[in-house]
Amino acid sequence: MAEEKGLTTRAEDFSAWYNELVQRAELADYSPVRGSMVIRPWGYALWENMQRALDDMFKATGHQNAYFPLFIPQSFIAREAEHVEGFAKEMAVVTHSRLKATPDGGLEPDPDSKLEEPLVVRPTSETIIYAMFAKWVQSYRDLPLLINQWANVVRWEMRTRLFLRTLEFLWQEGHTAHASEAEAEEEARRMQDVYRTFMDQWMAMPPVLGRKTESEKFPGAVRTYSLEALMQDNKALQAGTSHMLGQNFARQFDLKFQTQDGGEEYAWNTSWGVSTRLIGGMVMTHGDDTGLVLPPRLAPYQVVIVPIFRKEEERTVVLEKADRYVEALRQRGIRVHLDTRENMTPGAKFYEWERKGVPIRIELGPRDVAKEQMVVVRRFAVGDEARKEFLGEDVGLETMMERLEDIQQAMLRAARQRREDNSHRGIEDYDRFREIIEGPGGFIYTGWCGSASCEEKVKAETKATIRVLPFEEFRTAEAPTRCIACGGAAKEEAVWARAY
Amino acid sequence: MAEEKGLTTRAEDFSAWYNELVQRAELADYSPVRGSMVIRPWGYALWENMQRALDDMFKATGHQNAYFPLFIPQSFIAREAEHVEGFAKEMAVVTHSRLKATPDGGLEPDPDSKLEEPLVVRPTSETIIYAMFAKWVQSYRDLPLLINQWANVVRWEMRTRLFLRTLEFLWQEGHTAHASEAEAEEEARRMQDVYRTFMDQWMAMPPVLGRKTESEKFPGAVRTYSLEALMQDNKALQAGTSHMLGQNFARQFDLKFQTQDGGEEYAWNTSWGVSTRLIGGMVMTHGDDTGLVLPPRLAPYQVVIVPIFRKEEERTVVLEKADRYVEALRQRGIRVHLDTRENMTPGAKFYEWERKGVPIRIELGPRDVAKEQMVVVRRFAVGDEARKEFLGEDVGLETMMERLEDIQQAMLRAARQRREDNSHRGIEDYDRFREIIEGPGGFIYTGWCGSASCEEKVKAETKATIRVLPFEEFRTAEAPTRCIACGGAAKEEAVWARAY
Repeated sequence: MAEEKGLTTRAEDFSAWYNELVQRAELADYSPVRGSMVIRPWGYALWENMQRALDDMFKATGHQNAYFPLFIPQSFIAREAEHVEGFAKEMAVVTHSRLKATPDGGLEPDPDSKLEEPLVVRPTSETIIYAMFAKWVQSYRDLPLLINQWANVVRWEMRTRLFLRTLEFLWQEGHTAHASEAEAEEEARRMQDVYRTFMDQWMAMPPVLGRKTESEKFPGAVRTYSLEALMQDNKALQAGTSHMLGQNFARQFDLKFQTQDGGEEYAWNTSWGVSTRLIGGMVMTHGDDTGLVLPPRLAPYQVVIVPIFRKEEERTVVLEKADRYVEALRQRGIRVHLDTRENMTPGAKFYEWERKGVPIRIELGPRDVAKEQMVVVRRFAVGDEARKEFLGEDVGLETMMERLEDIQQAMLRAARQRREDNSHRGIEDYDRFREIIEGPGGFIYTGWCGSASCEEKVKAETKATIRVLPFEEFRTAEAPTRCIACGGAAKEEAVWARAY
Repeated sequence: MAEEKGLTTRAEDFSAWYNELVQRAELADYSPVRGSMVIRPWGYALWENMQRALDDMFKATGHQNAYFPLFIPQSFIAREAEHVEGFAKEMAVVTHSRLKATPDGGLEPDPDSKLEEPLVVRPTSETIIYAMFAKWVQSYRDLPLLINQWANVVRWEMRTRLFLRTLEFLWQEGHTAHASEAEAEEEARRMQDVYRTFMDQWMAMPPVLGRKTESEKFPGAVRTYSLEALMQDNKALQAGTSHMLGQNFARQFDLKFQTQDGGEEYAWNTSWGVSTRLIGGMVMTHGDDTGLVLPPRLAPYQVVIVPIFRKEEERTVVLEKADRYVEALRQRGIRVHLDTRENMTPGAKFYEWERKGVPIRIELGPRDVAKEQMVVVRRFAVGDEARKEFLGEDVGLETMMERLEDIQQAMLRAARQRREDNSHRGIEDYDRFREIIEGPGGFIYTGWCGSASCEEKVKAETKATIRVLPFEEFRTAEAPTRCIACGGAAKEEAVWARAY
């Protein structure tokens, strides 16, 4: 069986490694619909854990969930000029409402069912949501309106990659309306913080935060903020964005409110989202040549127990002990799974759970039961660190949660270290810049004069783009003075990279 | 404001009452997309609670969640003959992948982007899911495969009603594959039980269970089981179904497995689903002329505290006490909300939370604080039962969970009573049958000879359909002997009603 062969290694071909890993860890699979994928149970359980953590944070910051239509009238898309430019080129268009039989026994869209106005499948929902907000908001008392939607969206991508870029994907999109620009700005920044906490503390994927340039911002936004994570191949992944939309959409959809002093004003909007793309980011942040490596807080199973026995009487004692472990660990709030499958060797089980990235495996045989010993094997290790430990079973049960937290923190430290090791600061020489981009890659911090033409030139010549103009805490201690492209005075520091 | 006016009453116009209630309780709203609705936060929070309860039950019975594509190739729909008949007439068809600008500044589907094969937006996912199952299942060891998907689906309905029948709706669809017919049959029945437990214990909406007739079964199924609930206007609502699909889809999508003895066989499938339609069912089961009445287990807020004060010093003591109630109730696992909105009278708040169906309201003024008294008002009451109670605050806090459980059980008893009061058993005379259907309505239990023509005749003449051929426990003690339509020998008992 194909399963017996190892993965292509990251060093050999990162892209092939990624595709193989995603399929062999059973995160996702290709579907018969070009560009659309199937999220398999192991991948979907990860997504559910991500959703729960994010949803709790959204609610803790005052947001409520709602659900808006999948279809958007074509005319809505046309209203916001930049929005049209940005999205009109990649949308699924519904034109008929019925199929009819053809003489040869097939089906075709029934010409009689042609719609008067075509509908597009939402690529994002600003237009339909702000049209509804306009119906609900009358006065400043109705603001802020803080809404989030968990939904599927469709963008007609030509070159697709599992999780990273697919025709359809799952995401959440937050949409808010505020009585002032300052409040909207604060909201857009707040959600960056929420995303950052999630990526740091749950995913162990520490991003760099900042503002997008004009050319990279969301179509229709005044300002776009982004979180950029560095993958193991030293390419950047845009992992989440939030947008201060100003009054652009409010004007088009007549989203007005009566102010406290009796006047009338357009509301200020924000929108923000993360998607199943995060799963791809997690794979490329932590995966190794054996397979997936999951951060414990998101792992569907945090601990898997593999029982080992030959004879029937061994079976009884081992499974009895295993059941007790399961109960003891569950009581401690740990997601534990006992792998009782038959017709499968313990070795094959070890390999499968390693491939699927389970943080801790307990190997439990009759000798361990006799010695009241727990054999604990960690999935994640730094360098040559020993992965296997022999613990007294009481100690093992008592310290399991700590152990998982240790792994979580160690993964974050390692990812942060890797990001910093591959961040090149103070680069002033364009040849050196090109050497890095065309060689090892990574984040390159340079000065930038602020002109779109310099940005464009570098992009055309090196395929590197400005990922963000970083927030204060990410900036280089000594501010750069010259633009990497034209050598003119630097207006800001920019973080460059090739990106997914 | 329109809000000040009462609802149309159920007696005046049930349908108008329903539409007004749904909008004024802020469950849902009409959208600019014909036939599509917006689920507002209050409605969506209900759906989330439903999802959580159902999802836990699905997982407890061994199912895993996954996600499959929104789009289905047109040719897939064509494969299962009955399936085509049932669904081809009401689907959204995607024919283009791009819009382009028109000379007058509008947009139109770009003719150059016409798809080679149209895609339909899933009306249900049997075809795409079993195509994937065929890829994953090789041997009997891979079975049973027990998958569920939470998703949106689209059916091109012409006459739509909020929640009950909309172009797009949210649902879950379970899809399973088994090694034998007996196992598939068992699964289809098991999911009926799960749904029933949910409808009884969470929704307090007790359905009648049974099998659908040939003419009413799911297109492509061998057998369809259904749960039918009786609404307050004495019409039936099909609230959930499960289907034993036999090998019909397995044959079309080549879903085969190697049997234990080395042979090869097609798998046996089931599918089952419930949708946001359940929210409409809950409204029509429990709502009254004031508004929504929510069963406590599903209510987004189970208890709302409305503080009452005039002077600033009253404000302080009342809110301090209210905060302590909130904490004490949360510790007891109760979903409690403190309504601190200003610019709104306590009376307006009482009315709003009644309209939104919150099970218990606590009215808290300075005199209550002084007397350590808790004023508890129930939303649900039977007949003239007193809704308001004055309790010692310790008793109030201690017994709140019990009180909520009491309400939950009382709502179920009342709904069951109403269903039985409006169930007409042993009807043998067709004139009497018509009198009931054209008069009060309800479930009518009769004998049926089993012929489709009798079923069709009754439907044509009375608009009543056979909702189910009821399971044993729902059947009339004395089995009917004659068919209600032809007077011939009854083969089975049938439950008739007009339906949504």
